[in-house]
Amino acid sequence: MGGDLGHTAAVAGAVRALESTPELQLILVGDGGQLKPDIEALSSAHRSRIKLEHTTEVVAMDQSPRQVLRNKKPYSMRLALEMITQGRAQACLSSGNTGALVALSKAVLGTVQGIKRPAILSPIPSLNGVTLMLDLGANATCAPALLCQFAVMGDVVARGDYNIARPSVGLLNIGTEQGKGTELLNEADAMLRESALNYVGFIEGNHIFTDAVDVVVSDGFTGNIALKTMEGFAQFFAARLSESGRTHRDEAGSSLTDGFMQILDTRTHNGASLVGLDGIVVKSHGSADATAIFHAIEMATKEIHSHIPREIERTIAQYKFPAGELHV
Amino acid sequence: MGGDLGHTAAVAGAVRALESTPELQLILVGDGGQLKPDIEALSSAHRSRIKLEHTTEVVAMDQSPRQVLRNKKPYSMRLALEMITQGRAQACLSSGNTGALVALSKAVLGTVQGIKRPAILSPIPSLNGVTLMLDLGANATCAPALLCQFAVMGDVVARGDYNIARPSVGLLNIGTEQGKGTELLNEADAMLRESALNYVGFIEGNHIFTDAVDVVVSDGFTGNIALKTMEGFAQFFAARLSESGRTHRDEAGSSLTDGFMQILDTRTHNGASLVGLDGIVVKSHGSADATAIFHAIEMATKEIHSHIPREIERTIAQYKFPAGELHV
Repeated sequence: MGGDLGHTAAVAGAVRALESTPELQLILVGDGGQLKPDIEALSSAHRSRIKLEHTTEVVAMDQSPRQVLRNKKPYSMRLALEMITQGRAQACLSSGNTGALVALSKAVLGTVQGIKRPAILSPIPSLNGVTLMLDLGANATCAPALLCQFAVMGDVVARGDYNIARPSVGLLNIGTEQGKGTELLNEADAMLRESALNYVGFIEGNHIFTDAVDVVVSDGFTGNIALKTMEGFAQFFAARLSESGRTHRDEAGSSLTDGFMQILDTRTHNGASLVGLDGIVVKSHGSADATAIFHAIEMATKEIHSHIPREIERTIAQYKFPAGELHV
Repeated sequence: MGGDLGHTAAVAGAVRALESTPELQLILVGDGGQLKPDIEALSSAHRSRIKLEHTTEVVAMDQSPRQVLRNKKPYSMRLALEMITQGRAQACLSSGNTGALVALSKAVLGTVQGIKRPAILSPIPSLNGVTLMLDLGANATCAPALLCQFAVMGDVVARGDYNIARPSVGLLNIGTEQGKGTELLNEADAMLRESALNYVGFIEGNHIFTDAVDVVVSDGFTGNIALKTMEGFAQFFAARLSESGRTHRDEAGSSLTDGFMQILDTRTHNGASLVGLDGIVVKSHGSADATAIFHAIEMATKEIHSHIPREIERTIAQYKFPAGELHV
């Protein structure tokens, strides 16, 4: 649950997902008072694949993660995550408070063996499809070995979810030559060059959108800055276009706004995965509509099919990044 | 000089600037063999306001700043900067190697009294005109007091060059609440709250493009990441549009590409100023055409008229940011 468009968008997105994935079963966790009418309005075929777990407790958007962890309230977010440990679900999708979701996920699920910390990963539209970026905000500062772990996780997701055979990996920096940027980045660069990953070196912010690499690794601070910048720019451009009062149409009469959204695939690529956890957790944008929620559920479904947590655990064991030196 | 489009774009841009600013005089520094024909083709009125300083030495785009500093070659960049100390010019514009330009500028001009390090500042198009951003890459990591100095310089430029009476200043972070992000940022936040600046607090990457603040301050690493990300995104969007093979036209028949460029004002806002130096230095994009170069010259002209270096020196003296603690 969570999200600005509430239960209606969630249920509508859920229905699309059920239709798209025959074997999918969903548990909606939230206020039964609001959800029941929406569910009861569905076909019996759909209803049979949706369960309802009632709770009125919700993590507020401005609530501190620390506070959420400290009390034992049956937040919808907490209940949903616990379903994974209980074996009742394989994945959890939330549109709520990201900081709380990260903290609760770590507390309830823990990370797979060998992984020090989970990272927020998202697919960013690029010239050759997508570029996977992580960490987008779970870990503000990161030791070199932690960045290397993120690189491994990005590689696993690129192979498992996006069928990229030998994903190329880059480190986000302010220049491409060795020695550029911070000492920490150059240490990570050295470690990645030694590894078996298809590591291509440093890449700059503009390369995120080209076909330079399949996976871009950064600490959570840098990743979040880049993410919010690109989102803000897209919103700015859209706002300027509509301010201009002019509608641009192509030869077929399609308006630019449709083409714009299509090009940017913002709703198609809704969804950030918290990789490294012993369980699948996907974070949807707060403003997600039914279509966006559908795509976020699809992301979770893909990860279930690709056994991402187990694959990460299996793969990280093959690498020698010194986990002991992960303390920043 | 410098830049991919070479001397032709430079001379054409120069001519537009001469027409726009009656009191402007220019000295073109570079290969006389290439420049002379272009200059001789101009009207006598224009020719009388252009001098030529000949040198064939050019800083290569991949040359290390250290190497440039160590040798004494008469690079066009060096000669142009020295003209400022010689009193022959008040400003220098270069389209060349940014790292070398920063290093040479510091070595030749030095900073004004009270300023520890220069910063690269650029106007970014935003919903209410522009947002000034600095540092965009001169100083990768910055102590809190250095960020505060950048805030002061941004405030001076916003007032002098953009006529904003009481510029609002924000620190670029991954959240707006106090305590978010790094310790270093929170130390800077505390210092700025104590200052006389119109400091509004932390802002996120998307706020760069809104009317949230007039000035966004960050360290050079973060600023460069944000800048390259927005540039890359704009290029990506433009590439996708042209790939689609469709031309979008508005009711008046104007193609989107024109509208796109106009909206984004990328050529109008070409130019990054190296603020804090004892002299005016503007860096133009390497790919700048005549129009973009014209706008970069205009930026330098504005700074001359606003006496930016002197204003910065005068203003920084009013603030108590402990310069002694600037060592990172």
